[in-house]
Amino acid sequence: MIIVIQCKDKVGLVAAISGLLAGEQINIISMREHVDVAEEMFFARLQVQKRVDATALQHKLEAALPQGAQVHVNPQPEKKLAVLVTKEYHCLSDILIRNHFKTLGATVECVVGNHPVLADICSRFEVPFHYVNHDDKTKEIFENDVTECLQQYSFDHIALAKFMRILSPQFISNFAGQIINIHHSFLPAFIGANPYKQAFERGVKLIGATAHFVTNDLDEGPIIAQQIIPVSHNYTAADMMRAGKEIETAVFARALQLLFEDRVFVYKNKTVVFE
Amino acid sequence: MIIVIQCKDKVGLVAAISGLLAGEQINIISMREHVDVAEEMFFARLQVQKRVDATALQHKLEAALPQGAQVHVNPQPEKKLAVLVTKEYHCLSDILIRNHFKTLGATVECVVGNHPVLADICSRFEVPFHYVNHDDKTKEIFENDVTECLQQYSFDHIALAKFMRILSPQFISNFAGQIINIHHSFLPAFIGANPYKQAFERGVKLIGATAHFVTNDLDEGPIIAQQIIPVSHNYTAADMMRAGKEIETAVFARALQLLFEDRVFVYKNKTVVFE
Amino acid sequence: MIIVIQCKDKVGLVAAISGLLAGEQINIISMREHVDVAEEMFFARLQVQKRVDATALQHKLEAALPQGAQVHVNPQPEKKLAVLVTKEYHCLSDILIRNHFKTLGATVECVVGNHPVLADICSRFEVPFHYVNHDDKTKEIFENDVTECLQQYSFDHIALAKFMRILSPQFISNFAGQIINIHHSFLPAFIGANPYKQAFERGVKLIGATAHFVTNDLDEGPIIAQQIIPVSHNYTAADMMRAGKEIETAVFARALQLLFEDRVFVYKNKTVVFE
Amino acid sequence: MIIVIQCKDKVGLVAAISGLLAGEQINIISMREHVDVAEEMFFARLQVQKRVDATALQHKLEAALPQGAQVHVNPQPEKKLAVLVTKEYHCLSDILIRNHFKTLGATVECVVGNHPVLADICSRFEVPFHYVNHDDKTKEIFENDVTECLQQYSFDHIALAKFMRILSPQFISNFAGQIINIHHSFLPAFIGANPYKQAFERGVKLIGATAHFVTNDLDEGPIIAQQIIPVSHNYTAADMMRAGKEIETAVFARALQLLFEDRVFVYKNKTVVFE
Repeated sequence: MIIVIQCKDKVGLVAAISGLLAGEQINIISMREHVDVAEEMFFARLQVQKRVDATALQHKLEAALPQGAQVHVNPQPEKKLAVLVTKEYHCLSDILIRNHFKTLGATVECVVGNHPVLADICSRFEVPFHYVNHDDKTKEIFENDVTECLQQYSFDHIALAKFMRILSPQFISNFAGQIINIHHSFLPAFIGANPYKQAFERGVKLIGATAHFVTNDLDEGPIIAQQIIPVSHNYTAADMMRAGKEIETAVFARALQLLFEDRVFVYKNKTVVFE
Repeated sequence: MIIVIQCKDKVGLVAAISGLLAGEQINIISMREHVDVAEEMFFARLQVQKRVDATALQHKLEAALPQGAQVHVNPQPEKKLAVLVTKEYHCLSDILIRNHFKTLGATVECVVGNHPVLADICSRFEVPFHYVNHDDKTKEIFENDVTECLQQYSFDHIALAKFMRILSPQFISNFAGQIINIHHSFLPAFIGANPYKQAFERGVKLIGATAHFVTNDLDEGPIIAQQIIPVSHNYTAADMMRAGKEIETAVFARALQLLFEDRVFVYKNKTVVFE
Repeated sequence: MIIVIQCKDKVGLVAAISGLLAGEQINIISMREHVDVAEEMFFARLQVQKRVDATALQHKLEAALPQGAQVHVNPQPEKKLAVLVTKEYHCLSDILIRNHFKTLGATVECVVGNHPVLADICSRFEVPFHYVNHDDKTKEIFENDVTECLQQYSFDHIALAKFMRILSPQFISNFAGQIINIHHSFLPAFIGANPYKQAFERGVKLIGATAHFVTNDLDEGPIIAQQIIPVSHNYTAADMMRAGKEIETAVFARALQLLFEDRVFVYKNKTVVFE
Repeated sequence: MIIVIQCKDKVGLVAAISGLLAGEQINIISMREHVDVAEEMFFARLQVQKRVDATALQHKLEAALPQGAQVHVNPQPEKKLAVLVTKEYHCLSDILIRNHFKTLGATVECVVGNHPVLADICSRFEVPFHYVNHDDKTKEIFENDVTECLQQYSFDHIALAKFMRILSPQFISNFAGQIINIHHSFLPAFIGANPYKQAFERGVKLIGATAHFVTNDLDEGPIIAQQIIPVSHNYTAADMMRAGKEIETAVFARALQLLFEDRVFVYKNKTVVFE
């Protein structure tokens, strides 16, 4: 079982948590704790050996910790995922394959696309795909249609697997803390449109990708994972895009794994990631 | 302050440690705990905010933990280092530069070489160098001479910075757990002599290096850190050696840093490294 | 168009090749040439701008070069691929996805499995799958059955995408230079069975994978590509296997891309790879 | 011997070069050629086996190539280097160590600092250090003093090894194409002052460094090499700076090696690097 806790820091929190667990004869196999000293915030992730009633333990921990502590006891790592896409297949396909072979660490409940082209790959894996057209619609109406679609499902997270529409603050706040995105650059470099053309023109020697939570500040949400891939002078802008897709797929897979294993905490515009 | 603890595992160890600290109003800023379930061994590293008397705290923790627990409370991360070398300059020079500019995390107390060529670089940094000739000596006599040399100094660790003599079990047991080595390959590949020639002939695409504790099993001690560097068909064996030296320098520097920051635990033939 | 040439080295080969191309007003956009001085072997890859008749150009180049020169003029990079598998899905799925979206650089003609479990994923992408049972068969009979299966198709390469049977010298020589394998370790470390258990017990800090041509010396064929992924003390042998599968998938994809883009030359037990 | 050529592209350049070499019985061991199709620029680097008179060969090649071709025949890879520094020791020390042990591929002729603190490390290696104070001086007078200092030496390149003054267009054009800099970030991210504070506040998971030629556009010169190092939530801004210095040292060493081996070509704001 995994236990994750986030709360205001004070002396004695580890003692309170571990004392309670020891009292229940629960052995801690692996523990990570981090205090953001400037923000006075406490973050902890514990892996424990004994399986007990998760809800009961969660209530006991909440009672032992300061008011407002976010405690989550996870009896099994299975999450539920909704995916938003446009036209690019690489991240979605990787997610669908892992989902199909039960190695994603989550279940893909549905895929929603603002373009119909990825319906086919979803149907090959019997994953529900919903096409929500954005043509001739205001952003508000389009997002209402997407939300209506999503409301048919229950899910923990929304993965923007190359979803190329900017979401409104309203939509984002409706799913606060749940939306993660894969960004086609090593943020904060090449913010905005056409990063591969920018990278090509700047003559960079590395191409990056960034997985991050989505907040109202476009491209400014808390970063979960980043990786790079080397490129050279003989890469065209198209070659850079192809290399970029490889690294996007890898980074997004890694970020989702970290998320599904309860290793990611968010506070303000940063993350704590217990790898 | 850093607190490191290694002992037989049982339920309640984190509670005992953190309860004691909370009682002293000591806040835990960062904590890593790991249990090797198969070996029933407990490893923990805590960074705490308040500075207290280190010896007193160490005794209190020892009293609160099972018999035989290894507890170390480190009021400051300064270690003392002895270095053994032969002829190659790269790892030693990196250590001497960091030592000179006080960024090594340790003080180099002395350098002992079985060849005189590195005396010069040591003298440039006013670090004592001792030349211990091995010609016409048995291994026993040579090692006695090295030991005599070392006994003039106090040190926590011995770094074999490209020391090209195989040490006897007797010497190793005299400095049990203190000796670390940089091995010129990605262990366990290319064990033994002339790894770059082996790598060249095998046509590998990566060259590695391994920093490890020295035990009686040559090239089989617990691994602290490993890294690789890409190579290609247009590398000669000499080019591979040059690339290998770069990665040896980097890996050894990283391993020493981990060691000096009390991040490395050894148990049987493995390490726990809280990076 | 891509031109690849491999032959015995002598003075004037580049002049002969480029003189012939200049005479045809063909501009060389990118050229890599390498001479293995010890072996006196010449390797070159040219990317040229003008599209001309590939067969005619190939004959002219052969006439201009020493007897026995291997010349290949590739008017388009499309190769044909056969895949052999057993039970693991990760490399095959990656190949099938890229094949489906036409970004593999080759066409998957068929998949042959000695276990039926991967028939399903092939059928989802309408790729022919043949189950060839090896139970109660000699290796000879089993391999005859596989060969019979393969002979229904034309292909340039056979990818062993986690095919867990050792192939006989006979089979290998029937498809000499065509078979590539993904090996579950950073060769030459952890040769043989159960590398992740070996890696776990040795306490390594990196897990690798190696893509190589298959020759009669098991695990000793010419290496095309190698990569590693960091692991730590808190990886179980199962976690190491999972990390290993990620890096296997990535290395095999990279090796296939290099192969399909005519960037890989083999001579004796080594490769020249013009990345 | 190494031959490097840069000129306007046209059909037949490789034939002209290699024909001339074949006529002289010079064998090409390794060749890289690249055409920037959009810019119609030709770049080539050849390694040849036979040692001939470099000046004579250079004149013959120039005669055989279009007007304006930049041809350089390098009989030996030894370059001369001037270094500008301020207070940080890490890049300079790495250069001095390699210089001292004759593995830099160049000779450090002098070091000029606008702060006296690094005089000591230079004197330990008997490398001339000149302190040029910038206090109470206009940029023009300061740069005149630096130039006067440099004019006592002959050198091929000026390495800005953490030189923290912005150079004027006048100074840069006086040493056009000769100045390379190590920038404390993965350009184009974190341009400007205090990149580690920016990186810390943004919560990035990778820290980078960029070696580039210096042009009038600050932080916008042609990039030679870039690398990254992973960081995490438990890095303070100071830890990020320390990690940054490690990667700065490594990237600058790599860029200098590429430069000294005649592997770097510059055209407009980009480089061609034949690694």
